[in-house]
Amino acid sequence: MNKKINNCLEKIEKKGFQALLISNPTNISYLSNFRKADGYLLISRNAIIYFTNFIYAQEARRIKNWRIKLSNTNIFDTVVKEIFKLKLKSICFEAKHLSYLEYKKLKEIHLKRRIKFSPVRDIVEGLRTIKDKKEISFLKNAIDVTLEAFTFIDEIANDNMSEKDLYIEIERFLKIKSDNELAFLPIVAFGKNTAFPHHLPSQVKLSKSKLFLIDLGARHCGYCADLTRVFFLGKMPTYLKKVYDVVKKAKDLAIKKIREGVRVKDVDKAARAFIEKKGFGKYFGHGLGHGIGMSVHEEPYINYKNDNILKEGMVVTIEPAIYLPGRFGIRIEDMVLVKSKRGEILSGYIHQ
Amino acid sequence: MNKKINNCLEKIEKKGFQALLISNPTNISYLSNFRKADGYLLISRNAIIYFTNFIYAQEARRIKNWRIKLSNTNIFDTVVKEIFKLKLKSICFEAKHLSYLEYKKLKEIHLKRRIKFSPVRDIVEGLRTIKDKKEISFLKNAIDVTLEAFTFIDEIANDNMSEKDLYIEIERFLKIKSDNELAFLPIVAFGKNTAFPHHLPSQVKLSKSKLFLIDLGARHCGYCADLTRVFFLGKMPTYLKKVYDVVKKAKDLAIKKIREGVRVKDVDKAARAFIEKKGFGKYFGHGLGHGIGMSVHEEPYINYKNDNILKEGMVVTIEPAIYLPGRFGIRIEDMVLVKSKRGEILSGYIHQ
Repeated sequence: MNKKINNCLEKIEKKGFQALLISNPTNISYLSNFRKADGYLLISRNAIIYFTNFIYAQEARRIKNWRIKLSNTNIFDTVVKEIFKLKLKSICFEAKHLSYLEYKKLKEIHLKRRIKFSPVRDIVEGLRTIKDKKEISFLKNAIDVTLEAFTFIDEIANDNMSEKDLYIEIERFLKIKSDNELAFLPIVAFGKNTAFPHHLPSQVKLSKSKLFLIDLGARHCGYCADLTRVFFLGKMPTYLKKVYDVVKKAKDLAIKKIREGVRVKDVDKAARAFIEKKGFGKYFGHGLGHGIGMSVHEEPYINYKNDNILKEGMVVTIEPAIYLPGRFGIRIEDMVLVKSKRGEILSGYIHQ
Repeated sequence: MNKKINNCLEKIEKKGFQALLISNPTNISYLSNFRKADGYLLISRNAIIYFTNFIYAQEARRIKNWRIKLSNTNIFDTVVKEIFKLKLKSICFEAKHLSYLEYKKLKEIHLKRRIKFSPVRDIVEGLRTIKDKKEISFLKNAIDVTLEAFTFIDEIANDNMSEKDLYIEIERFLKIKSDNELAFLPIVAFGKNTAFPHHLPSQVKLSKSKLFLIDLGARHCGYCADLTRVFFLGKMPTYLKKVYDVVKKAKDLAIKKIREGVRVKDVDKAARAFIEKKGFGKYFGHGLGHGIGMSVHEEPYINYKNDNILKEGMVVTIEPAIYLPGRFGIRIEDMVLVKSKRGEILSGYIHQ
C-alpha cells in the first residue's frame, strides 16, 4: 500500500470509518500517479478498487495492487453494485465532490443494507496541502519553465502582435518545454484589458498600449506553476509606476509574513492593509493567493477570513493586485514555499 | 427575458416550481452567452440573479437584465443568504451538479424557512440537445476548421516527428484559425499507441510506424467539433485495411439509421452488430457516440442501453472503433445532424 493511501486510511479510521469513496479526479490522480484518472476510487484496508470504463482500461490495469472494475455505461451504478457486495459497514464520501444524485443512490443502499454513509471534507485535500521533496521538485521544474517563458515573451513581444498572437506563441513555447497540458489557459491582456482579472485574449494589438500583463503556468508531471508579471514597452509613466510599486511592496510585505504557524488571514492582511493605506483598497477585490500543487487553485485559500495556520511544506501563490476599471490593472504573482522560520520564494524573477 | 430562459421556466413551472438554481457552468453559459460563467444562476419570473465574485464582476455586469450578486469568499454561501431573503416557496436544483455539501446548506434553509427544494434532472441539458440555426452554424464553423486541420496534418506529418511535435503544431493551427480554447486536448497516437482510446502524446516518433490516429476538435463561439481520422504513410497493409473497412462500414450503417423518431440504442446496434458479426465485438468497448454542442460530450449518449428517441435538431458524433491491444486501433468519427427523414453528415471528409 502506498504511503499516501495509508495516510488517508489513518485519517478516516480516526473518525471511525472503514473506507473512503473518492470522486474528485485530482484526488484520485494524487493517490495513484495515474494522470488521466476519472471515475471513482474506493479505498479500505482490504482492497483498493478503481471504477472506470473501457476507455482507460488498459492504462488502469497497470496500476499495482489496484482492483479495476469496468463499467459499461454509468460508472457510479457500478460503484453502487460493488458496495452492495462488499462487507463494509461504514463508508465515508467526499461531501464537496459527490453530487446530490450520487448521494441519493448511496442512500438507497443504506435503506437496503444498513451500511452507514457519512460525509467528510478535505481528507485527501488536507494531505495534498503539504508537499514532499518530489512534489517540490516538480513544482520547481514547472516554475523554471514558466520563468523561461517570461524571458521568451520579453524577447518576442512587439507592436504588431495581438493578444491572441502572443497567447498562441506562449502556449506553444510552454508545451514544447514541458507537459502537454498547461496549468491553465494563459491570461494575456494589453492596455485597458489588464483591468479585467481574467481577461480572454482578443485581437487588440500591443501598439495601442505599451502595458501588458501575462498570467501563466507550465505543468510538470501534473504539478502546476502560476505566476503573473506585467511588462511595459519603454519607460513606465509615473502614475503607472506608482501603482506598480504599491502592488510590489504589498507582495513583499505578505511574503515576509510567511512561516509555519502564522494564520493565513494575517498574510492576506499584510498585503491588503498596505494597499488600503495607499487608497486602493476597493480596487483589490479578490483573495491574496491560494495553495498550488496538482490543482492550480487548492487549499489553503489566502483570504481575510481564513483562520487556518500555515504549515511547513505548503506552497502558496501571493498575488496582490490593483484593478482600475477602464484604465489599467497591475497584478504580480509569486510562488512561496512555507518553511519553519520563513517563506522561500520559488519564483525569484521580477521583470520591472 | 431571453427565449432559452423562458423555455426553462416553462419546463419547471409544469413541474410546479417557481425557480431553478443552476450550478453547471456550461448550462449558465448556454443561458447567458457569457463564456466564462462560473458561480450560480437563479432564474424565476421575477428575477434572474447571477452569483459570482470580483474576478468576473466587470464582465458579468454587462449582461442585460441580470442582477449580479458578488461574493467575497464562498459563492454558495451568498446564494444561501439571498434565497433566504427572497419570497420563493419552491425552488428546484440540478441533481447531477449540486454537491452533497451545497445540498445540506439548502436543507438548513428549508428547516428555517419551509422553502421546498427539489431535485430535477436535465432541464437545461434537455433544451441544449436541440440546436437552432445559429448553433448549427457555430458547429459547422468548428467542423470546417477541424477538417482544415486534417488537411494540414496530411501535409506536415513526416518520419521525424514525435507525437508531441505533431500535437503542438495541430494545436497551434487550430488556435490560429478558431477560438482560444479547443473543444478538448487533441489525441495524437502513432502505431501501437492507437490501441489506447485516449492516448496522451509521447516522444514516440512516426518513423517507427506508419499508422497514426488523430482525434481533435476546434471550438467556435463556444461550440465544439469532435472528429477522428486515421492516417497511413504509404500503402496500408491488407489486414489493417480490412479492419479499417469494417469500422468505416459500421459508421456508414449507423449514420444510415439516423432520423427523427429512431431509438438511440438502435443506432448503436446498427454499428455494433456489424462489428460483432465481423468478429471484433470485444474490441469495441465504448459507446458509439454522443451529443455535442457547448460540451464536447453531452446528451444524447449513444449506447446500447439508451431508450430515448432521436429528435430533429440534435447533433451527434458517430465513432465506432476497433482496438487490438499491443497492435493497433482504428476509430473513425463523424458529426451528424438529425433531420426528420435522415441524418445530415456535417463532416463530409474521409481521408483514406
